[in-house]
Amino acid sequence: MSFFDHYISVRKHTEHICSVLQTEDYVPQPVPFVSPPKWHLAHSTWFFEEFILKKYLDGYAEFDSDFGFLFNSYYNTVGKRVLRTQRGNITRPGTDRIYEYRQYVDMHMEIILQLKGSDTEFQDIVTLGLNHEQQHQELLITDIKYILGHNPIFPVYNEDIDWEAREEEATGFIAIPEGLYTIGHTADGFSFDNEHGAHKVFLDAFEISARLVTNAEYLEFMNAGGYSDFNYWLDEGWSWVLQQDIHAPLYWHNIDGEWHQYTLRGLEKVNPDAMLTHISFYEAAAYAEWKRMRLPTEFEWEAASSLFNWGHRWEWTHSAYLPYPRFWKPEGAIGEYNGKFMINQMVLRGSSCATPKAHSRNTYRNFFHPDERWQFTGIRLVKL
Amino acid sequence: MSFFDHYISVRKHTEHICSVLQTEDYVPQPVPFVSPPKWHLAHSTWFFEEFILKKYLDGYAEFDSDFGFLFNSYYNTVGKRVLRTQRGNITRPGTDRIYEYRQYVDMHMEIILQLKGSDTEFQDIVTLGLNHEQQHQELLITDIKYILGHNPIFPVYNEDIDWEAREEEATGFIAIPEGLYTIGHTADGFSFDNEHGAHKVFLDAFEISARLVTNAEYLEFMNAGGYSDFNYWLDEGWSWVLQQDIHAPLYWHNIDGEWHQYTLRGLEKVNPDAMLTHISFYEAAAYAEWKRMRLPTEFEWEAASSLFNWGHRWEWTHSAYLPYPRFWKPEGAIGEYNGKFMINQMVLRGSSCATPKAHSRNTYRNFFHPDERWQFTGIRLVKL
Amino acid sequence: MSFFDHYISVRKHTEHICSVLQTEDYVPQPVPFVSPPKWHLAHSTWFFEEFILKKYLDGYAEFDSDFGFLFNSYYNTVGKRVLRTQRGNITRPGTDRIYEYRQYVDMHMEIILQLKGSDTEFQDIVTLGLNHEQQHQELLITDIKYILGHNPIFPVYNEDIDWEAREEEATGFIAIPEGLYTIGHTADGFSFDNEHGAHKVFLDAFEISARLVTNAEYLEFMNAGGYSDFNYWLDEGWSWVLQQDIHAPLYWHNIDGEWHQYTLRGLEKVNPDAMLTHISFYEAAAYAEWKRMRLPTEFEWEAASSLFNWGHRWEWTHSAYLPYPRFWKPEGAIGEYNGKFMINQMVLRGSSCATPKAHSRNTYRNFFHPDERWQFTGIRLVKL
Amino acid sequence: MSFFDHYISVRKHTEHICSVLQTEDYVPQPVPFVSPPKWHLAHSTWFFEEFILKKYLDGYAEFDSDFGFLFNSYYNTVGKRVLRTQRGNITRPGTDRIYEYRQYVDMHMEIILQLKGSDTEFQDIVTLGLNHEQQHQELLITDIKYILGHNPIFPVYNEDIDWEAREEEATGFIAIPEGLYTIGHTADGFSFDNEHGAHKVFLDAFEISARLVTNAEYLEFMNAGGYSDFNYWLDEGWSWVLQQDIHAPLYWHNIDGEWHQYTLRGLEKVNPDAMLTHISFYEAAAYAEWKRMRLPTEFEWEAASSLFNWGHRWEWTHSAYLPYPRFWKPEGAIGEYNGKFMINQMVLRGSSCATPKAHSRNTYRNFFHPDERWQFTGIRLVKL
Repeated sequence: MSFFDHYISVRKHTEHICSVLQTEDYVPQPVPFVSPPKWHLAHSTWFFEEFILKKYLDGYAEFDSDFGFLFNSYYNTVGKRVLRTQRGNITRPGTDRIYEYRQYVDMHMEIILQLKGSDTEFQDIVTLGLNHEQQHQELLITDIKYILGHNPIFPVYNEDIDWEAREEEATGFIAIPEGLYTIGHTADGFSFDNEHGAHKVFLDAFEISARLVTNAEYLEFMNAGGYSDFNYWLDEGWSWVLQQDIHAPLYWHNIDGEWHQYTLRGLEKVNPDAMLTHISFYEAAAYAEWKRMRLPTEFEWEAASSLFNWGHRWEWTHSAYLPYPRFWKPEGAIGEYNGKFMINQMVLRGSSCATPKAHSRNTYRNFFHPDERWQFTGIRLVKL
Repeated sequence: MSFFDHYISVRKHTEHICSVLQTEDYVPQPVPFVSPPKWHLAHSTWFFEEFILKKYLDGYAEFDSDFGFLFNSYYNTVGKRVLRTQRGNITRPGTDRIYEYRQYVDMHMEIILQLKGSDTEFQDIVTLGLNHEQQHQELLITDIKYILGHNPIFPVYNEDIDWEAREEEATGFIAIPEGLYTIGHTADGFSFDNEHGAHKVFLDAFEISARLVTNAEYLEFMNAGGYSDFNYWLDEGWSWVLQQDIHAPLYWHNIDGEWHQYTLRGLEKVNPDAMLTHISFYEAAAYAEWKRMRLPTEFEWEAASSLFNWGHRWEWTHSAYLPYPRFWKPEGAIGEYNGKFMINQMVLRGSSCATPKAHSRNTYRNFFHPDERWQFTGIRLVKL
Repeated sequence: MSFFDHYISVRKHTEHICSVLQTEDYVPQPVPFVSPPKWHLAHSTWFFEEFILKKYLDGYAEFDSDFGFLFNSYYNTVGKRVLRTQRGNITRPGTDRIYEYRQYVDMHMEIILQLKGSDTEFQDIVTLGLNHEQQHQELLITDIKYILGHNPIFPVYNEDIDWEAREEEATGFIAIPEGLYTIGHTADGFSFDNEHGAHKVFLDAFEISARLVTNAEYLEFMNAGGYSDFNYWLDEGWSWVLQQDIHAPLYWHNIDGEWHQYTLRGLEKVNPDAMLTHISFYEAAAYAEWKRMRLPTEFEWEAASSLFNWGHRWEWTHSAYLPYPRFWKPEGAIGEYNGKFMINQMVLRGSSCATPKAHSRNTYRNFFHPDERWQFTGIRLVKL
Repeated sequence: MSFFDHYISVRKHTEHICSVLQTEDYVPQPVPFVSPPKWHLAHSTWFFEEFILKKYLDGYAEFDSDFGFLFNSYYNTVGKRVLRTQRGNITRPGTDRIYEYRQYVDMHMEIILQLKGSDTEFQDIVTLGLNHEQQHQELLITDIKYILGHNPIFPVYNEDIDWEAREEEATGFIAIPEGLYTIGHTADGFSFDNEHGAHKVFLDAFEISARLVTNAEYLEFMNAGGYSDFNYWLDEGWSWVLQQDIHAPLYWHNIDGEWHQYTLRGLEKVNPDAMLTHISFYEAAAYAEWKRMRLPTEFEWEAASSLFNWGHRWEWTHSAYLPYPRFWKPEGAIGEYNGKFMINQMVLRGSSCATPKAHSRNTYRNFFHPDERWQFTGIRLVKL
């Protein structure tokens, strides 16, 4: 596949994710951490316009001078922007106009890719833009799920998606010997700056589960009073349970005594054998405590990752999101990509059913606050 | 005009207000007090379905069993409902489906109006529904203005509307003698329960302005430091100014030293001779204090109303919204219409440029909290 | 009694109220609307220093230059001040130092009263200061009750006070004929500016209860589900009930199925025949609605007040706190006394068991927000 | 020193810290994270009563049955407790009564120590209680500083304490070679559970500063616009700066262009050569970013700690507070000591001028949220 074909296939996949939406679905931002689909479509496009076309394509005319202000996400370097919490109020430009924007930018990207496609530094930034777009593809799916899943009439996104009900075959625990392991990205190919700085980490021997926790296992915890005994919870996790009145994973509803969950194909009974999903770090840690086990560190996870199947759920680790040794954020706006978020978040490893193909590797460091659970998260345990 | 023609003309006017909207504009709820246009279209329809069709039309089949839950506003009597603050997240049913709902209900209303149109009690409820719809017509306009007016690209609603720029001819003050005046609705025709209970009120002699305060007059107050001298403000008004960082009426923007305002035809320079609008009760009272005058009571306003032109701006009075003597709220859901809001709000009299024709009278009692200003509000003064 | 003797007897009474406190009790501000007893002692003294000694006594040396900043309440005219919510953090100056301050100011007041005691304008301001101090005497008692009453060990303030348990003899309703009544202060003697502007009010005939609602009557409302049926409540009152989880009057505790209340002599069983107290306007209005009666307006109350006993409870009226005709706030700091609070509050009439002797009259207008209930409030009904 | 003498010397030191307080100073809780001195005195005593006397001393009669409820801090296992945010409202029991409580408990501790002093398990719990009390000694000092330091009249705590002005001699950087280092407590003597689980950590070579950052160095950062350039800040740190309007370390005041700081001996000019203190993790990390260096990890700090002087400031590390391998919280209330706080906090190492003698070691793990700065915190840098 040519680089442009690769470019266009990523871009089209974003639009494919939205192809079943109604125009109204593109608009709302029900909570600050969920962005309107419209905004994702425009913001991922703005990235190419701002960091590539305006910089490298001579004589490029901005599609619309308002868009920089409207669709910048958090790049302080680039200028003023709409407050994150206000994204849902911006009805115009409409969805059609944003699709025109995508087309306009893609057309110009075709030109610049023909001119400069073989320049390595240039290709690196385009590749960053495509990886950025792939991150937004996953967010698009989870944000759409959040929007539809909080509608009391539970609309179906796609009848053919069975992600929430998927089961896993593996059993048992895998023993990993003590030793010095190299952690971080060393292979060829794209990676984010937060994976760089490969370094040695000493690990004690440990045993890690070959499979993820299932709904049935988690229901045992729930039925044993897991949500009402403070002993299993971190202190701030317990406050979260009480203040938010949490009694089950996100999207779970108890209907006439039976647990259902909202899935991308609508409201369904919980499949007990499926991999649990949509739990926060607090819930993952409480479950592990109750089970008298623990979560792996991100180093243990990476060291063991070739020995189990991963890719269905983002797996919470017990590591905080912190810089690797020798991490230094790049100059300029690109430097705002990862480093400034390295506080108060926990690392998740692997990838999920919603992650685009070819956008995962065992050194990838995803991160969320310990109370966030609208991603397809899951639990893998390590013995004490 | 037949009663059904009247019915249908009111209903069509609601849709006419929305005719220039893009689908996306129907969705958002930028602040709790502004509802999505989609919601207004459905809720005013739900009123007829709930209180008329389900009650009076034998064999009527609900259009959609979810709609009662989705589009009830605040009628606790009728059952559970979507939280007011969540209206902007409900993307489905889509706008098309809501227009179908309107059509379906109108079709059945035609039937029931033919069957029972001459029944007085029945006609009274339909008339209440139409007046209810007219109230939502005004809210539709002011909510659309709020949505578009908080978009940084300031979209035009309708090039032909010049309401914000309108001037008034009258001058001077009108003297009203002391005496006992009858206050409240006594004429034939529709009125709300909060206007009933006509009663005598003794008024001292007073002099009331023949015209509303203009932008130029209000700019004098602003330029005299009105927003930075606590002396003119009620204590809670002063807190509002400080906490919300208020420096001008809503929709005003100072661009390179010149005052502009967002209007329904876009961003324009402020016309100094136009009637001031979009000010809160706090601002109205502060302006009056600075001018060493006062606002009229709602009783003074009503007693004098035949002697000046009104209808361009809702005029803040210095009366709190309280029950008239012998007010008693009707049984059932209809009883939730007015009475339960009679606390912490101030009365506005007259009507505004956004009020539907034939939906105003000099006994009409509108009411808002003292900090609210997204309606077309204005100021009329009385001498101390 | 000489004017100075009068002065000193008011001042000593303030200290008498505090005589049973421990030093620690003088310090806290558990909620913004409750001030530390220490602060009341100093603030009422500051009033005399600021408005009298510094203005009229030549060569007067301020007791402490920090005190103006520390003990100004809300007089923006006078200068900067400690934020209202921060009063509980100011441990120094200590209580002893504040008693010295009182002594110092009283000593100088003795001098100035000898010099200028016969000057009418001067006497008026001293009289205002004494009435101001009397208002703080009542607040001292209710604030002390709040502090002690929110301590889980329920300390006794004074074994000899039986206010909460007091009963009333009167029965029946009193009929008042329609007519023009003069409302506002016209007699000799002190009154606040908010009572001035006596004016005629036309009243329809009405019947008002000769006695206040008792605990037993209110318990009927509670037992009939009064706190769980939205129908009885104003909309904002109902939100208050839900958000604050209100189920009974303030200071009531259900212990093993029996209602107790914290009183100034400790925790006691509720006396069913005693006059109900510590209810908000929302509760008063809901009770009246349930009873199918209503609260009097402040005008009805004043017109009928000579025909019933009052003085045990502040009686909620259904009148908002608004300026009387021709009200104009005085220039300068004294002008901040009443006028700026005339929004979002309801009028209470009469006085309470905690009101100092000789600090009540039937034109007195007290006012609180509709959710406030730490004063000794009560309910008197009018027939519909 | 006998074990009892040791016990009593720790206990007396707590009282010595409070010896210069006025009674009023014992009461307030200005912010949730600062507890009243009264509460510290009682809570540290309650620990001995609850975990030792009630368990081990036959026939022990509780001093007061309310105290368990009043002075439990966060031990859910032990039962209900006063909400943390309400501690400042509990004026009774008074300070005198709390000193009686201390005496009563100490008297009984003398008895039990004679009976069981040689039992190792028993001695371990008493030792834990004494270390717990020493932690509260440091909090007492920093909480008193907070209370007095937020009083606009800036009272002096102790004229003889010069901690904030202290200077340091050392210079240069210390090179540490790469290698496997053992981290965690292995020596004899007391340590907390969070230090246990000694384990090997591989470290790359690094260079760490021999001395802490001075006020003069930090002023360079401030003068270079450090507080107004988002580039130096973590994203949540930047929000903190904007929302809290942060422009300098805690307790710093710019008076007529000159920087002063509140110290335990009153308001003083900032000594440029003194060790910087009272900065948050956010400020420490921003300073390091500006300096193009970084903070050490807690492992680097521990590995290098024997080569520099520490003990003046708690030194922020770039490590999140997480469990060591094999950490497992003890059963029962003692298990609530550390583990449940291991989220959203950063580790500080060393100790400070306010730490009691003999309550520090190089494996000690202190922890605070990244925005907290009322402890005596400081900055030590590592080269990139």
